[in-house]
Amino acid sequence: MTAAAPPPVIVLVRPQLGENIGKAARAMLNFGLTELRLVSPRDGWPNPDAGPASAGADVVLAGARVFETLAEAVADCTDIYATTVRKRGVTKAVLTPEAAAQKVHAQPGRSAYVFGPERSGLETDDVALAHAIVTVPINPAFGSLNLAQAVILLAYEWSKHVPGDGHVALASPPEVPLDPPAPHGELEELIGHFVRDLDQSGYFFPPERRDATLRALRTTLTKTGWSHNDIRMMHGIIVALGRAPRTR
Amino acid sequence: MTAAAPPPVIVLVRPQLGENIGKAARAMLNFGLTELRLVSPRDGWPNPDAGPASAGADVVLAGARVFETLAEAVADCTDIYATTVRKRGVTKAVLTPEAAAQKVHAQPGRSAYVFGPERSGLETDDVALAHAIVTVPINPAFGSLNLAQAVILLAYEWSKHVPGDGHVALASPPEVPLDPPAPHGELEELIGHFVRDLDQSGYFFPPERRDATLRALRTTLTKTGWSHNDIRMMHGIIVALGRAPRTR
Repeated sequence: MTAAAPPPVIVLVRPQLGENIGKAARAMLNFGLTELRLVSPRDGWPNPDAGPASAGADVVLAGARVFETLAEAVADCTDIYATTVRKRGVTKAVLTPEAAAQKVHAQPGRSAYVFGPERSGLETDDVALAHAIVTVPINPAFGSLNLAQAVILLAYEWSKHVPGDGHVALASPPEVPLDPPAPHGELEELIGHFVRDLDQSGYFFPPERRDATLRALRTTLTKTGWSHNDIRMMHGIIVALGRAPRTR
Repeated sequence: MTAAAPPPVIVLVRPQLGENIGKAARAMLNFGLTELRLVSPRDGWPNPDAGPASAGADVVLAGARVFETLAEAVADCTDIYATTVRKRGVTKAVLTPEAAAQKVHAQPGRSAYVFGPERSGLETDDVALAHAIVTVPINPAFGSLNLAQAVILLAYEWSKHVPGDGHVALASPPEVPLDPPAPHGELEELIGHFVRDLDQSGYFFPPERRDATLRALRTTLTKTGWSHNDIRMMHGIIVALGRAPRTR
């Protein structure tokens, strides 16, 4: 058995009610998850409604960190899972909570489970940051999972695979890639470098297609699994191409 | 595979708050369970607080049946599972939700998942009626599962084993037609495009490092899993960067 992967981070994007943040913290701690990150919580942070709803999960709330953007919140994470129903126009692998838990345990970096606002769920731009989508298979005639319920199901599935906890440990040690994927922040910097230079070259044309093209570029780069060294190389290539004569 | 076993009955013993009965109904219906039985609900039945908390799971509440005793409530059930932390002095098999779900699906009779009152849980006499105990493995330092959360975890585990032709067709994560990796020839052309432009920019320097650098570039691009469309986009990016002003 190799060293256990770190527990996943729970990221709540633009959560609305403090009560629901508290309930999510409670759900997490039941299954041993403690690292909570909040992206632009609607009512600010700390929120007096969170504590009473957490049923004593104060350690989770006290350690919660707040970020402006999802990209910042997951900057140190290598695997990012967007929990959502399927979005049109996003082409990503869709996993069950079970399959996602297995992947989280199988790779050495830090993973993030990302949850959207209570009413609307994640935006397409949030999902674009993720490596895969996690969907809980529910009754198609009655899909009514709330935020804390989605958190508890993912936390529960993760906990089932924790070694040495009386659960089924992973039978065979995972294949660890020699060169693990870089933390997400490094990929963001690379995307930023591409975008800056492409903006100057007039690549994003016409302007009204910019968002869609940017999303496609992000998807193309996110799927690469590039390591720190791969990303360093690509920075060098962007710089070099910028001084290369035009191809044709 | 024989005919699917009937879905388990959810039995709430002496539930206190109507709100929690509604939340349990909501949890059930998310995973396709509809048969709810109440043993001596504290505030009688129907309870006006149940409906609003059920988030539309009216079909479950409308069909709920009330019994005086647990024995009557499970009289037609062949397998009875008491959900509880382990009780002293009760010698029964203790199963995970997963193992219980497998047993429920493996036998043809009707099963019951029995849940105790919110505060106190099941009495020893209730547990004595059960064939086995189901315990959700939780954080020993913070065990704070509420009634609806316990119901949702058991219902979820049951739903995972529902055969495709079973009672409820659960919405499995759709198989997204992922963009398959391009044929290798396309990747070769992309590598060739990179190399041509990088050669002109003086990227491969010093010359004696050229082979090693080229191998690294090839490795970086080969691991991407890029599709035809990804590769087309990258060709465009190389061309665009060639006309971009130098980064720095």
